[in-house]
Amino acid sequence: MGMLLTPQLKEYADFLDKLAEAAAQITLSMFKKPLNAINKGKKLQLDFDPVTKADQQTESVIRTLINQTYPSHNILGEEHGKEHNHKNDTDTSWTWVIDPIDGTRAYICGIPTWGTLIALNDGIYPIIGMMDQPYLKERYLGTTTGSYLNGVKINCRPCYKLTDATVSTTDPTQFFATDDDLRAYNRVASKARLVRNGLDCYGYAMIAAGFVDVVIESGLEAYDIQALIPIIEGAGGVVTSWTGKSAAQGGQVVACASAELHKEVLTLLNG
Amino acid sequence: MGMLLTPQLKEYADFLDKLAEAAAQITLSMFKKPLNAINKGKKLQLDFDPVTKADQQTESVIRTLINQTYPSHNILGEEHGKEHNHKNDTDTSWTWVIDPIDGTRAYICGIPTWGTLIALNDGIYPIIGMMDQPYLKERYLGTTTGSYLNGVKINCRPCYKLTDATVSTTDPTQFFATDDDLRAYNRVASKARLVRNGLDCYGYAMIAAGFVDVVIESGLEAYDIQALIPIIEGAGGVVTSWTGKSAAQGGQVVACASAELHKEVLTLLNG
Repeated sequence: MGMLLTPQLKEYADFLDKLAEAAAQITLSMFKKPLNAINKGKKLQLDFDPVTKADQQTESVIRTLINQTYPSHNILGEEHGKEHNHKNDTDTSWTWVIDPIDGTRAYICGIPTWGTLIALNDGIYPIIGMMDQPYLKERYLGTTTGSYLNGVKINCRPCYKLTDATVSTTDPTQFFATDDDLRAYNRVASKARLVRNGLDCYGYAMIAAGFVDVVIESGLEAYDIQALIPIIEGAGGVVTSWTGKSAAQGGQVVACASAELHKEVLTLLNG
Repeated sequence: MGMLLTPQLKEYADFLDKLAEAAAQITLSMFKKPLNAINKGKKLQLDFDPVTKADQQTESVIRTLINQTYPSHNILGEEHGKEHNHKNDTDTSWTWVIDPIDGTRAYICGIPTWGTLIALNDGIYPIIGMMDQPYLKERYLGTTTGSYLNGVKINCRPCYKLTDATVSTTDPTQFFATDDDLRAYNRVASKARLVRNGLDCYGYAMIAAGFVDVVIESGLEAYDIQALIPIIEGAGGVVTSWTGKSAAQGGQVVACASAELHKEVLTLLNG
């Protein structure tokens, strides 16, 4: 069964495919490639610059394609900040939100749980989002009419309570800015069936695909989460801030496989 | 360039390929497949039994092939314990050491950092070891004459000090049995260039492939580590216990990309 998309969403989905393919040419060319050992003074050091370059070059390529195709749209990216295009006053609120390589640490370590995240925000909310993992050949697309993995419909699994749930965060020892945040996370994690860390954007994709039930994170930027919101919501899940508000601006974010689970997790997060 | 193996190692390497392919038929058939929702009384619960079954069935298939091909060898596996074969008294010290799915949590979560681990121990030390990750189509082989990824020689990268190093452990919040262990780990992690958690056996493979420099773990079983020792040592790395002794029986294990790094890490682990 193919994807059920409105003509407008279909146009954006096709364009996201084009962006993903352009991005993958750069990201894959530097993934799992050795870092150079460089001499700094008398010290032999590993040169991490190629990774930073992969991140920046990927974002540049994406920006160029967006500016060519949608010159009136704005762009918000991790590497090059916000770009305002005002050639057409009627739709300047539309913004492409980009994280060229979400999970740079995983990328550096040769682990394929990083992804290229791109969302299109209509001025209020991301109406379509993509996470592409080109090494695994897995492309997740989320829209208001459903979510898809490589064109095949995906859904969150029927997990309605925390004692059945798999919970994840990227790094409980480093990710939470305050002890209060860590304690809130631990209240949830300690009741979960299973805890698994270190997933970056792939954890959210696994909620949409039905293998993980809860992701809790703190300190996110808008570009870390906007692409993932339509993917999880289109698969039947719920994404909000820890207080139940929109997660679109990042900060403290919680994503759940079901509304029932989301209610239980929110209660625990808030004390 | 092909692999440089003695005729005996070549025979075992070919047999490991056969074992990996038989194992992958089972592991892949249940990986990224939805869990059933089952009714227990009035409660809807997710059924994790298929994952346990994948683990057990994989080990059974591996044991059957070993018993057919090397009936005099012993077998030590995670799921079915130790099996002594005494049909030939001259080589009863040879033991195949098996972890059918190392990283069961990753497997359950749809994350391809689990692996099938198989080593052959000559009575003293693992002389050949394999980690197979069939979803990624990555098969790591370690021997006394070198280590290989899909038949291509791999080496640890030239990382000689901790401030240049990427350090990993599976889960710092749950993995270390005692606060002393966690403090020892943190003394190393706090000096590292980069820390990345949640890798299971894939972290060790990434040392051999040159993308991670240090893995520190505690509470390992022999079958968690024996296959990985020849892979890291054949790539130029060092694997020992935290006190510098053989890591073959598991327990507290530290693996490093170079002898220099190993020396620095051991000093920090021991206080």
